[in-house]
Order: sequence, then C-alpha cells, then structure tokens
Amino acid sequence: MTPQGMIAVDWGTTNRRAYVIGPDGELIERFSDDQGVSSIAPGSFAAAITDLQARLGARQMLLAGMIGSNRGWIEAPYAPCPAGLPELVAGLKQVAEFNAAIVPGLRYSDAERDDVMRGEEVQLIGAVAAGLTPPDSLVCHPGTHAKWARVDNGSITAFRTVMTGELFALLKTHSILAAQMQAPATPNHSFIAGVRRSLEHRELTAELFGIRASSLLGRLADEDAGSYASGLLIGADIAAGLAFAGSFETVHLIGDPDLTALYSAALREAECENVQIDGETAFLAGICAMAECIW
Amino acid sequence: MTPQGMIAVDWGTTNRRAYVIGPDGELIERFSDDQGVSSIAPGSFAAAITDLQARLGARQMLLAGMIGSNRGWIEAPYAPCPAGLPELVAGLKQVAEFNAAIVPGLRYSDAERDDVMRGEEVQLIGAVAAGLTPPDSLVCHPGTHAKWARVDNGSITAFRTVMTGELFALLKTHSILAAQMQAPATPNHSFIAGVRRSLEHRELTAELFGIRASSLLGRLADEDAGSYASGLLIGADIAAGLAFAGSFETVHLIGDPDLTALYSAALREAECENVQIDGETAFLAGICAMAECIW
Repeated sequence: MTPQGMIAVDWGTTNRRAYVIGPDGELIERFSDDQGVSSIAPGSFAAAITDLQARLGARQMLLAGMIGSNRGWIEAPYAPCPAGLPELVAGLKQVAEFNAAIVPGLRYSDAERDDVMRGEEVQLIGAVAAGLTPPDSLVCHPGTHAKWARVDNGSITAFRTVMTGELFALLKTHSILAAQMQAPATPNHSFIAGVRRSLEHRELTAELFGIRASSLLGRLADEDAGSYASGLLIGADIAAGLAFAGSFETVHLIGDPDLTALYSAALREAECENVQIDGETAFLAGICAMAECIW
Repeated sequence: MTPQGMIAVDWGTTNRRAYVIGPDGELIERFSDDQGVSSIAPGSFAAAITDLQARLGARQMLLAGMIGSNRGWIEAPYAPCPAGLPELVAGLKQVAEFNAAIVPGLRYSDAERDDVMRGEEVQLIGAVAAGLTPPDSLVCHPGTHAKWARVDNGSITAFRTVMTGELFALLKTHSILAAQMQAPATPNHSFIAGVRRSLEHRELTAELFGIRASSLLGRLADEDAGSYASGLLIGADIAAGLAFAGSFETVHLIGDPDLTALYSAALREAECENVQIDGETAFLAGICAMAECIW
C-alpha cells in the first residue's frame, strides 16, 4: 500500500460507508451517510468522488458495491464464478484520472438459474483472507438481498440470493400488515415461532396473512408481529439456503451484527451450527487484501 | 324482496361496486368507482351512504366487504365457521335508520392458526345458492388476499388466505423488480415456467430475486418478467391451497375472469381439474339469496 494509505467505500443503493485506512492497514477514520447511488443523479458521480477525496484526503480509492453497477458511476462487469481474490483483482475497473478502482460484482449461472452479487464478495473474500472463515465453507450474508455462498479453496463457487430484507421492508412500509409490524424484530419467542412455522410448512405467502387474522382475533399481540414476520421470512430464507447448501458443518454468518444475531437464533432452531463474523471487519480485510495486490 | 328492489354494494378497501336490483332479482344498473373504505374519512360514511341512495333511488341496501370492518362504517362482527346462508343472514347488522344491512365477515380458527374473510363469503354462498358450485366443493377465490375454502353441505367449514395479489402489487410498485414487472401478466410460457418453479421448489423469496439476476444476465426479457413473477406467486398460492384442500375432484374458481384465467392455467400445470365462475354473477346471487331471507 502507498504511504498515504487509501480510502475504501462500501457504496450501496441507499447508504454508503467510507473508511480511511493507513499504510499499515490500520483504520484511521470512518463515516457513513445516506448518499447511496440512488440518491446521486446520473452525471453527478464524479463530483461525489471528488468531494469524498476533498473530505478524506487525496488518497487512492477502492470502491465496492452498487457504485460499480449499471445504476452507479462506472460499470465494473460481473466476474463469473468461481472467483476468489485473484479474479476480483483482475476484474477491478481502474479509473486512473481519479486514482480509483471499482470492485466487480460476481455472477453465477447454471442450467436452471442466474444470480448476481455486488458488495458482499469483498466481505466473503476478506473473511477468508483474514482467516475468519476457512477456505472451504458455507457462508450466509443476511441483508436486503441475503446471500448464501459456497466457498471452495478460497473461491466463491456458487451462491443463491434470497429477497428477505427487501420483502420485510416492503411489508413493514406498504402492506396491510404495516401497522402491526412497527415494533423492532428481536429473536424472542414470536420470532422463533415464525422460524419454526416456515421451516415446517413452506407456505410463506399464506402464513403472512395469518399475522393479520391472528391480530384481529386476539392470538398475536402487535408488539410481537414484527418479530413473528421476521421469523417467517428468515425461516424461509434458511430453508432456501439449506436446500442450496449441500453438506456442511457450520454456517458462517457474515454481516451486520443485529442481523447475524437473528439468523443465528433461527439457525439454532434448524439445529445448524453457526458462527457470527462482523461484516465491517471482513470488508476492511477484503479491501486491504485487494489493495496489496495492486498498490 | 320489496317492490322497489334494492341496492347491493360490494365495498372493498380501494374500490366499490354498486348494483341496483329489481323486485324479481333482475340487474337494473351498476356502477363502480374508487371510493373504497380507505378513501372515505371516518365520520363520512353516513354521508356516503345517503349520497348512494340519492344517486340510485331510495331503496333497501345490502352492503358487503370492508364497509363492515373496523376500518369501515359500522362493524358487522365476523361469524365463525362453519357458516352458510342462514348464519350469514343471522349475522347481518341492521341499520334501520338507513334502511340498510351489513353482511358479516367470516372467521376460522383451529389450534394452529386463524383466518378471516370479508366480502368473498357472499360470492361463495351465492355460487352454491345459484347452483354454480355443488354444496360440497373446494373453492378458490383469487385476489389481493386469495381465499381457498372448503364448502360442505352448503356451509363454509374452513378456509385459508394467501397474500398473493397484495405481494404482486407490492413487488410491481415498490421493489427492485418494479421496472421489469410493468408488462401485464398473461398465462404465457413465462407464467407457466414460474408456476412450475414454485410448485417444484417452494423457495419463493429466492426465486423472486432470480428475476433480477436473469434480467441482468439476459435470460429473461423484461416483457416476460411480470408473467413469470405472477406465475411464481400463483404457483406458491396453489401449493398452499392444495396443502389446505385435502381430497377433492375439481377446484371451483370464483372471481374476476382475468384472475381466474391465470389460476386456471396454473391449476392445469398442477394437473387439477377446474372450472371458472364469474364473481359478479356469484355476488348478485348471494345478495339476492340473503335479501329473500329478510325482506
């Protein structure tokens, strides 16, 4: 890495997190705001990049997430699976005039289906690079679009996306269940009941309406409805993830600690061993591993 | 029925349909507008009723749907299953000063779950009364909240709601799939592919994200995405409905002809015999059967 260190940005659809990293990989400064790519007008990205460099010092930049999508600044095409650190580095889109590079997303296709990720790959590869996950592992990254991934010999060989977080937000914001779902989801008895229901019945769109009926008829308190709905959705997520996973010993949960805690509770209900890994730590490890390859 | 005939209103959350029915049960006039209960301020329902009577003539009124809910005008409490024509009539909420009666909804509870309906019960009971469905039958009523119901000896004994239409609307309006889902859903090859996928895999929240990935990677054209999403959701609906149904010979589809056509195509894919019954015809039959009991 250069003596000036670098700026790393995890630039999502609705938020971004920026980090200043010193020459020895130490974290110097961090900030986050709501200037995700959907908040930046087409044509205004260069100004946003320049503004970041003015704010955080003129350093080399490594940008990950939706900033490299067709809705972002400059497209860094999806790299195909299997992909590990070398393939991510080979796919970096260099933008010399801004002293920046953009991380590619990943794509997976087989005879039946397609999948894409953009942003999570840095955390998954970073967790391997930092020894937080073994080079052969099953990883789950909860979020708006939760990812289940098989990592083999340090490369992501296949993955499966589940729209869990987005559906939860849609239901909480716009659906007939919205008024009941306002209490925060916690891994309480209602959450576990929802997880169990989804694991046993696989009828999510029917179970969801039960929230309204059970509220009207007095079986479910509104303070529990958000947790129950979260349990239903995460239970369905885990059912899909386990169907994808094949054989494994431990689920490595990487991401926001509030979310990995919910998934950990749900996985215990499914009798799956699991460990939680902080997503920010994994992100910074991935960024530094890539930076060392190019700078 | 009285010599002046009557006014029947199917008064939902977002729309209402009003009918003037003559003394021999003949349809004289119909209209529909967007004055569903969510468009009418609390305290303004009496004025809305008076306005309807002024517009359609001073006749007795039978009101069904969300108008009788706790978000509507005057609550007509849910009648418990089993319920047929006599129980619906017994549950009518008379509002003498307006010369009106409000149809109760139905509720169902067992050890595991609760369910409610409000509005569809008129069509289900009406179809039996008019001989459109046999007194022992399995009925599916597609819609915002699709209903599967067992009818035994002319009474609704149990039912199951699936949030199919509402989820489709949420995805089409607010989700990351919205831009792709704008073409109308039709029972084409993409619809059938979605149905088959849901019947085989039961992983709806994962399959939905596949729409985005397959669009980005060129496997799914945007003009087909709405039909494919509809197929996934209706396939999941049918899987839940068949799990509810127990043994049956024919699925009796009652409702909007555009929707029953989609469900009919999906049921053929699931190798289920089915017949389609026009929901408006069934509604008017149900209203007339109730009116004959009280007027």
